[in-house]
Amino acid sequence: MLSSLPKLPMGHLFVLSGPAGGGKTTLVDRLTKEFPYVKKNVSYTTRPIRPGEVQGVDYHFVSKDVFLEMVKRDDFLETVSLFGHLYGTSKKAILGELEKGFHLILVIDVEGAHKVRELLGAPLIFVSPPSLETLKKRLSGRGSEKGKSMDQRLQRAVFEMEQGENHYDYLFVNDELEVAYEIFKSILVAELHKRTPWIETNTDL
Amino acid sequence: MLSSLPKLPMGHLFVLSGPAGGGKTTLVDRLTKEFPYVKKNVSYTTRPIRPGEVQGVDYHFVSKDVFLEMVKRDDFLETVSLFGHLYGTSKKAILGELEKGFHLILVIDVEGAHKVRELLGAPLIFVSPPSLETLKKRLSGRGSEKGKSMDQRLQRAVFEMEQGENHYDYLFVNDELEVAYEIFKSILVAELHKRTPWIETNTDL
Repeated sequence: MLSSLPKLPMGHLFVLSGPAGGGKTTLVDRLTKEFPYVKKNVSYTTRPIRPGEVQGVDYHFVSKDVFLEMVKRDDFLETVSLFGHLYGTSKKAILGELEKGFHLILVIDVEGAHKVRELLGAPLIFVSPPSLETLKKRLSGRGSEKGKSMDQRLQRAVFEMEQGENHYDYLFVNDELEVAYEIFKSILVAELHKRTPWIETNTDL
Repeated sequence: MLSSLPKLPMGHLFVLSGPAGGGKTTLVDRLTKEFPYVKKNVSYTTRPIRPGEVQGVDYHFVSKDVFLEMVKRDDFLETVSLFGHLYGTSKKAILGELEKGFHLILVIDVEGAHKVRELLGAPLIFVSPPSLETLKKRLSGRGSEKGKSMDQRLQRAVFEMEQGENHYDYLFVNDELEVAYEIFKSILVAELHKRTPWIETNTDL
């Protein structure tokens, strides 16, 4: 089947970052539903599972001991400590999926993103909320962030948006979901038609 | 109005190349119809007008004398001689449209394309027919290319495809028009969300 988002013999890696509440999960869920050969990479974290989250789908929720054991074994491509919890991207999981031909979206923090670009050359995509006010509203809606935690998250959002604006390859605003989704998908489609990947796979087109 | 293909204060330039009969005109016509602030740049040429072509729309058809006068005045960004006819891209026309905020597609030959990237940093997009056989069929359908001229055009197509595969930024195959159009549009959408243009225009988002 012909598709503007081609399945290639070796998958490609994309990094998506942006403040919590900016719509990353919605965008990625929609993309993976539309294209079965695009997957969201599932990170490891020591933070407690939230209502509605699913073990092994949203994250691999592990204890701090297990996480530190993995760090010792050099299992992680990148790790980050955020609001007292650890997050990490498993090397083996990523390489396994790419070799099977799946394109992978890594939804990770701005700090981990730089490391992934450095090591694996993945393009960095940043999605912003239309304004900090909107972000505040979206975070309140979740019900899990209040008082001091909310302030911390807003501060973090400002830092992340500065990083995005200065260091990411692509940036867009999630104001209307339809538009944001089309931009997000377009970035992947365009990246998969850059010269090198096309030549690799020219034979099956 | 929000759009995945944003109008920016200063337009952006894109180069589209590919063998004659590969579908360039169809793709660009559709894009300019969907987005009124995207225009096809109209080149100058000394080749005779074909049935169905419109003066000032398909090309500015001019005499060899007028063309050479323009060359003398340094009016052209690039010129190329092809099958005995001259083709040229007017500097003034391009800069005028970009300053008005129109995004411009330059449908030009592979040789002119390199010059435009060098001078103005425009991304180079290459569209191929699915095979030389298909190209042959499409060219025959036009009725204007026969015998020796057809051989020349096929030879030229092979040269152009080699150039595209080795030097262009983006490549895609026009097999199914719907898919090809989505890829073409995606490349523009993605390019307009690269870091620099986004920051320039962040204030009106």
